[in-house]
Amino acid sequence: MMPAVRLHDPARRTFASDNYAGVHPEVLAALADADAGHQTSYGDDAYTARLTEVLGEHFGRAVEVYPVFTGTGANVVALSSMLPAWGAAVCAASAHVHTDEGGAPEKVAGVKLLPVPTPDGRLTPELLATEAWGYGFEHRAQPLAVTLTQTTELGTCYRPEQIAAVAEAAHARGMHVHMDGARIANAAATLGLPLRAFTSDVGVDVISLGGTKNGAMAAEAIVVLDPDAAQGLRFLRKTQMQLASKMRFVSAQLLALYDGDLWLRSAQHANAMAHRLAAGVRDLPGVEVVRPVESNAVFAILPRAAADRVREEFWFYDWDEATGEVRWMCAFDTTPQDVDAFVDAVARAVRG
Amino acid sequence: MMPAVRLHDPARRTFASDNYAGVHPEVLAALADADAGHQTSYGDDAYTARLTEVLGEHFGRAVEVYPVFTGTGANVVALSSMLPAWGAAVCAASAHVHTDEGGAPEKVAGVKLLPVPTPDGRLTPELLATEAWGYGFEHRAQPLAVTLTQTTELGTCYRPEQIAAVAEAAHARGMHVHMDGARIANAAATLGLPLRAFTSDVGVDVISLGGTKNGAMAAEAIVVLDPDAAQGLRFLRKTQMQLASKMRFVSAQLLALYDGDLWLRSAQHANAMAHRLAAGVRDLPGVEVVRPVESNAVFAILPRAAADRVREEFWFYDWDEATGEVRWMCAFDTTPQDVDAFVDAVARAVRG
Amino acid sequence: MMPAVRLHDPARRTFASDNYAGVHPEVLAALADADAGHQTSYGDDAYTARLTEVLGEHFGRAVEVYPVFTGTGANVVALSSMLPAWGAAVCAASAHVHTDEGGAPEKVAGVKLLPVPTPDGRLTPELLATEAWGYGFEHRAQPLAVTLTQTTELGTCYRPEQIAAVAEAAHARGMHVHMDGARIANAAATLGLPLRAFTSDVGVDVISLGGTKNGAMAAEAIVVLDPDAAQGLRFLRKTQMQLASKMRFVSAQLLALYDGDLWLRSAQHANAMAHRLAAGVRDLPGVEVVRPVESNAVFAILPRAAADRVREEFWFYDWDEATGEVRWMCAFDTTPQDVDAFVDAVARAVRG
Amino acid sequence: MMPAVRLHDPARRTFASDNYAGVHPEVLAALADADAGHQTSYGDDAYTARLTEVLGEHFGRAVEVYPVFTGTGANVVALSSMLPAWGAAVCAASAHVHTDEGGAPEKVAGVKLLPVPTPDGRLTPELLATEAWGYGFEHRAQPLAVTLTQTTELGTCYRPEQIAAVAEAAHARGMHVHMDGARIANAAATLGLPLRAFTSDVGVDVISLGGTKNGAMAAEAIVVLDPDAAQGLRFLRKTQMQLASKMRFVSAQLLALYDGDLWLRSAQHANAMAHRLAAGVRDLPGVEVVRPVESNAVFAILPRAAADRVREEFWFYDWDEATGEVRWMCAFDTTPQDVDAFVDAVARAVRG
Repeated sequence: MMPAVRLHDPARRTFASDNYAGVHPEVLAALADADAGHQTSYGDDAYTARLTEVLGEHFGRAVEVYPVFTGTGANVVALSSMLPAWGAAVCAASAHVHTDEGGAPEKVAGVKLLPVPTPDGRLTPELLATEAWGYGFEHRAQPLAVTLTQTTELGTCYRPEQIAAVAEAAHARGMHVHMDGARIANAAATLGLPLRAFTSDVGVDVISLGGTKNGAMAAEAIVVLDPDAAQGLRFLRKTQMQLASKMRFVSAQLLALYDGDLWLRSAQHANAMAHRLAAGVRDLPGVEVVRPVESNAVFAILPRAAADRVREEFWFYDWDEATGEVRWMCAFDTTPQDVDAFVDAVARAVRG
Repeated sequence: MMPAVRLHDPARRTFASDNYAGVHPEVLAALADADAGHQTSYGDDAYTARLTEVLGEHFGRAVEVYPVFTGTGANVVALSSMLPAWGAAVCAASAHVHTDEGGAPEKVAGVKLLPVPTPDGRLTPELLATEAWGYGFEHRAQPLAVTLTQTTELGTCYRPEQIAAVAEAAHARGMHVHMDGARIANAAATLGLPLRAFTSDVGVDVISLGGTKNGAMAAEAIVVLDPDAAQGLRFLRKTQMQLASKMRFVSAQLLALYDGDLWLRSAQHANAMAHRLAAGVRDLPGVEVVRPVESNAVFAILPRAAADRVREEFWFYDWDEATGEVRWMCAFDTTPQDVDAFVDAVARAVRG
Repeated sequence: MMPAVRLHDPARRTFASDNYAGVHPEVLAALADADAGHQTSYGDDAYTARLTEVLGEHFGRAVEVYPVFTGTGANVVALSSMLPAWGAAVCAASAHVHTDEGGAPEKVAGVKLLPVPTPDGRLTPELLATEAWGYGFEHRAQPLAVTLTQTTELGTCYRPEQIAAVAEAAHARGMHVHMDGARIANAAATLGLPLRAFTSDVGVDVISLGGTKNGAMAAEAIVVLDPDAAQGLRFLRKTQMQLASKMRFVSAQLLALYDGDLWLRSAQHANAMAHRLAAGVRDLPGVEVVRPVESNAVFAILPRAAADRVREEFWFYDWDEATGEVRWMCAFDTTPQDVDAFVDAVARAVRG
Repeated sequence: MMPAVRLHDPARRTFASDNYAGVHPEVLAALADADAGHQTSYGDDAYTARLTEVLGEHFGRAVEVYPVFTGTGANVVALSSMLPAWGAAVCAASAHVHTDEGGAPEKVAGVKLLPVPTPDGRLTPELLATEAWGYGFEHRAQPLAVTLTQTTELGTCYRPEQIAAVAEAAHARGMHVHMDGARIANAAATLGLPLRAFTSDVGVDVISLGGTKNGAMAAEAIVVLDPDAAQGLRFLRKTQMQLASKMRFVSAQLLALYDGDLWLRSAQHANAMAHRLAAGVRDLPGVEVVRPVESNAVFAILPRAAADRVREEFWFYDWDEATGEVRWMCAFDTTPQDVDAFVDAVARAVRG
């Protein structure tokens, strides 16, 4: 047998993105357990069936579950199942679906987005109203869905009552409510609430449930809470190229997270590391933490030269070149030692 | 640590599809080796870089490599990079891209297919000519690409000179040549030739290189042999939702296959099992092997009642309900014992 | 007032296409009558309302009418209203929608076409069955519509019972039935039947009703016979860019044809001219009329050199370069003198 | 001959939209002159050739001209010719292409729009910069075009130097510059400048040239000023269903306007009527003209009850229900008597 080879330095640490991290050991173990023998392909397997049960328990009702490969895939397949060909989806102007998905909603699925500027990444009923109008008027793509990002791209977290308010305003117009939950676990950890408390219990219809950013390899799932809100998902997932032939391995990753508490432990840890990081840098001269820390992200402004010096040790990205704002992300595998070393690097850098 | 759980019976064997099989142990080992620490996401990692080198050696030239998740994803992203918005692709009417991809080429990428009926799944210059015409005439989607499936959906295998002939006819019209190589390893095994002998050496421009059907978990790659034949792949892969964030794990699967000879060993084995199966059933009364065995598939006609009896032990699919033709697939993990037990089951079934 | 100017020679006659002809004088007069003063735009006008009444009488039931600009527009908007995002439409391989619409169904509306080779341009239940299968199987774009071209691109005309048979087979599968009626008037003239006899009475659900080829300027209409068969047409027509702001002028053209018998008179005349032409050339040496004359088209094979000599006087197109088949089209304004001069030119050409 | 029939009251006047008006008599006369005899279809006719010459004179250089049916059609076909499959277009958030085209850019052509809020409908280099970034980053649809609306949906008019500034900023990023000129004639009338002064002379690459709102029946044209900025227009116009078979009649409408000064006379008249209207209402109690009058539109706020009373005599639309702002449009056929009667109706209404 040809030996597998490690080509990278496992000691490298960054604060660039939760997807710079690898795969949680429990997820790797689950892949091995799902292997061997023959299983029916394309989702008619024991792992996908179990995943549906497990997620039904999380959300407190019977759900439909469609595992997919990526967060963009989950969002676009979900939105296209929630809209007719003439539909549009309202989103925050900062939403991942508008800013970071390469135009996939529009280009792959013909979903027109109606982006709304927001102060902190969160939509409100008032902000929704600025774009959710013109029903029956054929000159306007019909705003029949809204998508909420939880936690938002700006690291903020909707409270359940905030989601309930937007969902109520949306449903009153005949709109469906989608949640981009790529970091839904981080939200649960911040809120200290079960998943259902800010989804099924407050009017969310369909979720893009995250896995990859929280320790999976490549696994997300579309979870349908209201079956009347989504049409044709079975077909759309295939057509939009998110149907895994050996699906047992996608479902097994999600089971490793959600059949038990790995999803929550990992998110709690990542969030805690972000708080430790923010606490460590907050009082450094020339460093300003500019947004509330409600997930595993810290947004800060510091002198560009200092930022660049820190990057020589720990890579991270600019968030807004105009203002000098940067983003520091923690992951399930970020250690307190990593954070402390990073804070130390920042301290050294800002002191010149 | 929450123990991972095996939910399925690893002793189950089928002849339904090469994607009922699991993951080769060397692939699983490679995933573990790629884990740990931080690697740059979205492809700027050591595994993807190495994969590009390795495939360059297979194809005898510098190549661009874009790992993706699925065969449909590889085909659609590749074809859309090879065509302008007004383009069309000629394919065999039996091609996977036309019959089994849920309309993804048309619906996701606006690629019009021009399917051509063929006797055995293979295009020829003459068959190509039936649809490759009308250049400059705006009423006709412009046939600017041809896609060849190697091996074909009917289990046949193009010889290098057959590919060269189609490629020459295509290039003479300004068309690009794509190969759907989901089972390219099975073709190499049948032909006894290196990959380059029936691709880069005979005019293929872009390949969808298979991994999943040959022991990977979910890993294919678009390999660009002629950089002038494909535009914007970096962007199209993202927009069409085939960009893995933790790409090191997709590339590691393909390295496990192609950096060494696992790709060829596995395909040779699967092909050998198909030949063993065909030899075993060929002389049974009421069983007719109806197509040449040139890959890991056996196509046969037998009485429906007999087929259904065999299916109680070993699942497989109908190929053509009208004629009673069925398809038996072997995989990297099919054993001689599996084949012999299957042949025995067929023998018992046809004898009533 | 700046005088309008005629830039062309009105004496030029061709047999190239019914759209080389101009506009019938009664249509021009109708445009003038629809002018002056203000009318609500986008279809809420008196002409569009009247058109809906008039077509209801033709089809023997309440209909929805959506005027559009072009035949391609009518076909694509209609088919997209009849199919979900995962749908496909079965058509004859010779159908205009597959061969002459620049890929618009696929590229603009994501409608996958499943073309079926036919002997004479007409689908049958047996031919339909070759592609209308795989329901519920997500790997196959779902064949939920069939489109019939009446008269066909090959000049043949479906009899009512032929349409009924296909429609019954389609409805039994849950498919909707579309008719591309760009030359529906020519069919009515050939059959000697009212429009309803081969549409609403025999199971057609939605029609692309022709106007332009029959003397209008740029006017077709989508006519919905079964409102359950088409969703969102109001929106789709706008999104697919077929909504006229000053729609009264589109509707007025169609009223000029269909509110009275101009539609039938013109088609009867064009058909008669085709028969006169076929009769004139049929016995010429070296000329073979190769298809039945059932509309305003004559298909013939003659020596290429002879064809080219005729084209110096009267332009027309090759139909199949491989066989030397050409197509001669008559229009509402083709005169017996035109035909006789053309026949004389052919006679001179084939005699060398 | 069946007599054509006038079904409407030509005395009805409104201030709802310039497309409530009919067709200018000179345009009708041009249609009659273009009729009779046979002309090659799909644009190879004398009228389209002449139109290309005429527009070349207006824009001071050789141009390509593609007549189409609608403004939405012109915008979407143009933008799709200016962008690769992974492209995006920056526009004002108030632009017609974003708010009033039913999502056609996204749904028909996969063009992602990046809307920018503006104070008065006009983009500036600074506003452009808020969305024109991220080049080479595959997560972002690439902002490779900008579209300017002249005059804007808010009735404002870009000065030549304002267009030059945006065009320079766009070209510096490798972007192409599109102008939605549905009301380009109104802009020329306001500016007192030839068309080239604010288009070809200041960096515009492709124009959607308006006809319909200025007295044509259904005629717009894509005018390519820089042939390197637009690819495949011949094909895209067909595929996107904007190719007229009897194109001589579309081109004849545009010739009636632009081969001479009808385009300018009509726009000057409509603008003058708007100024007369604004002057008439400006000092009425309770009426506020809320935007500068730089085209044929007047935007005003007045009490809702008063607006509704006026609408009983003269129809018009709300512009913003939240603020009570309404829009009053004048057309080529609006008379001073119409305006005076309207002003009188407003005066009576606001006095209660």
